[in-house]
Amino acid sequence: MSNTMRQWRLPQFGRRHLQLEQVAIPTPADDEILVKVAAAALNYRDKLNIEDGSGGLQITPPLVPASDLSGAVVATGKRVTRFRTGDRVLGTFWADWIDGPWPAHALTLGGPLTGALADYVVLKQEWAVHAPATLDDIHASTLPCAALSAWFALVEQGHLHAGQTVVIQGTGGVSLFGLQFAAAHGAHVIVLSGDDDKLARAKELGATHAVNRRKTPRWDVAVRDLTAGRGADHVLEMVGGDNLLLSLQALKQAGRLSVIGTLGEAEIHSPSVPLFLGRPTIQGIGVGHRRGLEDMIRAVDHLGLKPVVDKVYALEELPDALDHLERGPFGKLVMRMD
Amino acid sequence: MSNTMRQWRLPQFGRRHLQLEQVAIPTPADDEILVKVAAAALNYRDKLNIEDGSGGLQITPPLVPASDLSGAVVATGKRVTRFRTGDRVLGTFWADWIDGPWPAHALTLGGPLTGALADYVVLKQEWAVHAPATLDDIHASTLPCAALSAWFALVEQGHLHAGQTVVIQGTGGVSLFGLQFAAAHGAHVIVLSGDDDKLARAKELGATHAVNRRKTPRWDVAVRDLTAGRGADHVLEMVGGDNLLLSLQALKQAGRLSVIGTLGEAEIHSPSVPLFLGRPTIQGIGVGHRRGLEDMIRAVDHLGLKPVVDKVYALEELPDALDHLERGPFGKLVMRMD
Amino acid sequence: MSNTMRQWRLPQFGRRHLQLEQVAIPTPADDEILVKVAAAALNYRDKLNIEDGSGGLQITPPLVPASDLSGAVVATGKRVTRFRTGDRVLGTFWADWIDGPWPAHALTLGGPLTGALADYVVLKQEWAVHAPATLDDIHASTLPCAALSAWFALVEQGHLHAGQTVVIQGTGGVSLFGLQFAAAHGAHVIVLSGDDDKLARAKELGATHAVNRRKTPRWDVAVRDLTAGRGADHVLEMVGGDNLLLSLQALKQAGRLSVIGTLGEAEIHSPSVPLFLGRPTIQGIGVGHRRGLEDMIRAVDHLGLKPVVDKVYALEELPDALDHLERGPFGKLVMRMD
Amino acid sequence: MSNTMRQWRLPQFGRRHLQLEQVAIPTPADDEILVKVAAAALNYRDKLNIEDGSGGLQITPPLVPASDLSGAVVATGKRVTRFRTGDRVLGTFWADWIDGPWPAHALTLGGPLTGALADYVVLKQEWAVHAPATLDDIHASTLPCAALSAWFALVEQGHLHAGQTVVIQGTGGVSLFGLQFAAAHGAHVIVLSGDDDKLARAKELGATHAVNRRKTPRWDVAVRDLTAGRGADHVLEMVGGDNLLLSLQALKQAGRLSVIGTLGEAEIHSPSVPLFLGRPTIQGIGVGHRRGLEDMIRAVDHLGLKPVVDKVYALEELPDALDHLERGPFGKLVMRMD
Repeated sequence: MSNTMRQWRLPQFGRRHLQLEQVAIPTPADDEILVKVAAAALNYRDKLNIEDGSGGLQITPPLVPASDLSGAVVATGKRVTRFRTGDRVLGTFWADWIDGPWPAHALTLGGPLTGALADYVVLKQEWAVHAPATLDDIHASTLPCAALSAWFALVEQGHLHAGQTVVIQGTGGVSLFGLQFAAAHGAHVIVLSGDDDKLARAKELGATHAVNRRKTPRWDVAVRDLTAGRGADHVLEMVGGDNLLLSLQALKQAGRLSVIGTLGEAEIHSPSVPLFLGRPTIQGIGVGHRRGLEDMIRAVDHLGLKPVVDKVYALEELPDALDHLERGPFGKLVMRMD
Repeated sequence: MSNTMRQWRLPQFGRRHLQLEQVAIPTPADDEILVKVAAAALNYRDKLNIEDGSGGLQITPPLVPASDLSGAVVATGKRVTRFRTGDRVLGTFWADWIDGPWPAHALTLGGPLTGALADYVVLKQEWAVHAPATLDDIHASTLPCAALSAWFALVEQGHLHAGQTVVIQGTGGVSLFGLQFAAAHGAHVIVLSGDDDKLARAKELGATHAVNRRKTPRWDVAVRDLTAGRGADHVLEMVGGDNLLLSLQALKQAGRLSVIGTLGEAEIHSPSVPLFLGRPTIQGIGVGHRRGLEDMIRAVDHLGLKPVVDKVYALEELPDALDHLERGPFGKLVMRMD
Repeated sequence: MSNTMRQWRLPQFGRRHLQLEQVAIPTPADDEILVKVAAAALNYRDKLNIEDGSGGLQITPPLVPASDLSGAVVATGKRVTRFRTGDRVLGTFWADWIDGPWPAHALTLGGPLTGALADYVVLKQEWAVHAPATLDDIHASTLPCAALSAWFALVEQGHLHAGQTVVIQGTGGVSLFGLQFAAAHGAHVIVLSGDDDKLARAKELGATHAVNRRKTPRWDVAVRDLTAGRGADHVLEMVGGDNLLLSLQALKQAGRLSVIGTLGEAEIHSPSVPLFLGRPTIQGIGVGHRRGLEDMIRAVDHLGLKPVVDKVYALEELPDALDHLERGPFGKLVMRMD
Repeated sequence: MSNTMRQWRLPQFGRRHLQLEQVAIPTPADDEILVKVAAAALNYRDKLNIEDGSGGLQITPPLVPASDLSGAVVATGKRVTRFRTGDRVLGTFWADWIDGPWPAHALTLGGPLTGALADYVVLKQEWAVHAPATLDDIHASTLPCAALSAWFALVEQGHLHAGQTVVIQGTGGVSLFGLQFAAAHGAHVIVLSGDDDKLARAKELGATHAVNRRKTPRWDVAVRDLTAGRGADHVLEMVGGDNLLLSLQALKQAGRLSVIGTLGEAEIHSPSVPLFLGRPTIQGIGVGHRRGLEDMIRAVDHLGLKPVVDKVYALEELPDALDHLERGPFGKLVMRMD
């Protein structure tokens, strides 16, 4: 291999500053692996981080964006025990969140840590997992952030089971993974969107019911009707603002509402009475830990679950991909490296 | 309707004492419902209770056996609010275990409380639930004990999810429900039996792997092999005796082993080292509560899950049915009332 | 005993309509007990219900207010098995919430069900528990709503343990129970109040730290400082409005915030980023179930925990007590019946 | 400091082979710390490992025994971020069990990894935690195995709370920590021992009741009597063999029994009926993870909990200490290094 590689670098905030540079391929330290990146999936957080660093953690440019990558190990440091050259891997969204509660020192790839929009990345061996056997690199790259967020909300923390009802808001990456995981566990899935075409495609993916939220602004009432008055067991809140109240009202007594970042609205608010009268559990979801990712990958392989990729872009087409991200894809957008 | 009905009555322990009597149809008190029984499913516990009362709780004859019934409400006491005449219902195995930990005062139908082997039964309104919409009476009658035991072990307490591995021992009623629920949640299912024909039928029901325990006495090693060395997440222990050690050895670190009564062997034993080295959770399962039954019925309806009924007997054929129960059915045996 | 008794009755919303009437002592039905009320504790919810029915559930006058009572069983219906004449009892705040998730049909005493501001009340046997052995009637009457709310938030759902940090907002009834339960489990307790005198009394009750929220408006920063940067494990949110953001910021990663009704502010709001970045669990608390109340009573007896009663009023002094409730007591206000 | 240090080394199994050698002080690698050991606490497992390696994991001599150490960091590798020279630390019993379920690759100090019976040890930075501020080195050294086993059983997994009843078997190290933690959470503690003197000392440490198991062989009945028939919420099983049945019978419905290694008896056995009728959760406890240790240390510091040390031995007195371990100490035995 050559000694240099391509890498998208952001010297200061703002999309116009993005530069596709040619840089030296990094060398792994003793406990690191060098990964030849095959694909990197984009998240809305990447757009925010590029624009002004508002995607979550404190970030200072320069920055290599994007957190989600699939690829193959091409070199290993001398103390690496988890992987061998040739292994197909995924990066973990969080570096050093292994299991249990999130440790305060954990950081994320794509800001502040060096991200995936490059031909090669160096990762500590603890920041990677074996890729699923049943997915190609393009599809596998979508799992570390979007899929794990949905899995963590519904399965790891939500203990979803058959016969429950899950409300999915929208048809972006997290939402469609939520739909697929819920359907795979035998749950009723009610999908909300303002677009009938997207609703039709959601039903093909396994949604039991589709509600057009433009035509049915009181979708909470629709959810009650569809559940014989009980309300939903789980709601994935992807919007924020006034929508939180509708989500609370759509929830059954002691139901679970997952607030998954980054929401469309910067604020959430609600009257306080539904909060204690409905006894909900509201859980903030910030992706999830490595053990959860490994559990989920076993599920993906066993289920034969196929992530929904809206479009694949070549690495140099990043500006087009970011435009698409802003318009709102159906499922995921993926950058391929060659 | 006539004023009398048929009822199997056991004036003293021992199968030969069973009598099919003609007795008065009972009258419901204020908070009771009168149910025209359509079907009653048998459990191994019923055989033990008939023989010597050893099916669990302390029982003194006379006794009307059998705990699991489906039927229709034909009369209601004046303070009944949960049901109306005509409602299709199931009895709950436990009277007065509504939710949470089992309360010490709860009793079971079919001993010590009056059981289901009759044309009519009177139940407190709290001891019944609405029948599933998708099942006929014969199949619905199998749910209160066998299905709920499997559901409680795997779902209510076990938080089973997709990608996990479940070991199912045998092909009786509880085992096949365990198989079906696990498959419906996207789990790998490994079924053990000594009979290749039963194993083949188990695979048709959704088992991922079938292991003949006669040909593979070290089935724990087989489970390790089938799980890339990890071991199973859940094991349903249905045998007892020395088998417990194999179950512990088949379990992954911190896996969950459910001991479901009534076991084949009256004793369990194990070396103690695997108990603390493997950090298992061993949970005793004694069926489950009413809220769990209602959750499960919603799952059965949504999944379209069809219980496996080996054979249906007319009420007067009870002796034949008990013989069959002793031989070991594939799934459930059901008595029909007309 | 005479055939009549005193009872505060509200024929229409508004404090000025409250009437102390002389009415017939009710007769228990078959599954009911007649309780000679010794004391009834007031909650802020009672004030709201009296003014306009805004204390939670839908209420239509006429109404007998107050949910929390202690007393003695003086008569039992013929099917009562849980109590005998002479037993000291407490009412449960929720009628028919026994265990597990709250059932949709459960109602509360003091609106819509007949409340405790009377010399006698009739309760279904399921709506009462045995009183703690170590408390007199005045103190025992404070447990069903305020104490159980705090217990449910911190212990039943919060799994509080020694070494954790709990932030308590204010010094009303729920807050002081939260303080006492947290201290009794070996937790650090940080109490917030705008009144130095109340803070001093809170420290006497076991608070580790006291923060004057008027002098330290950024009390979230103070909590971080007091916890070496970690943040609190549990926060009891009693205020609402903008305060929610401070509570979220005071919480450790994956901490637990209990929203306990009725909040001072009718709205809650927050920027959305702390919600997913901090991964909190926000749980709405609407008192709790009967099994939790029984667990808590065992704890109260074993700990020798003494509820804080600010003042005891005679039944006819209800207007004075409601004035006091509006000013904000330190702990609980109790009406005594004779 | 000199270049050499003392170290107990076992070239082959058997106590008589133990040698106190003078060896070179090791040098920490990049991610390691060098700890000057101040004290090492002994566990019964150490005795088994010395005799024949039967303390749990597969061990091959040569071996440096003992897992539990306290000391000070005297040198750090260049990539160490968790500690600085001078920090007081404890080793973790398990190397690389950080949180969540135990990972299969984790190993223990004192076999197979190099143990603590030496003047210095090298640890990966991930294998150590900050020592409690309120304990001296002798007492702090007792925490990593015995205290964490009790904490993990009762608090981390058992969610112990005030008002519950805990049965403690014996008065060894784990047992007395269990007693102290349970009392600190406001629980009733029933201690069993065959020695009245030890029982008296257990009551001084906070036990509510003491039962002499020689004089009261049916101690399960005694536990029922002391709990008004309910049974215990938690039982720490330290014996094995036939004792398991008594433990199950002493447990309340759906209670929790912790099997903590190494048991006195190499087998456990029980009739199977109590297992499913009582619906217990039996959990194997193999110490616990680092996050639990850190939680516990915060509790120890806040509670001012003082571990019970029966006797302190100088490093060269190991044979005497092992004799004492075999006789059964009251609490812990500790080796001091200077």
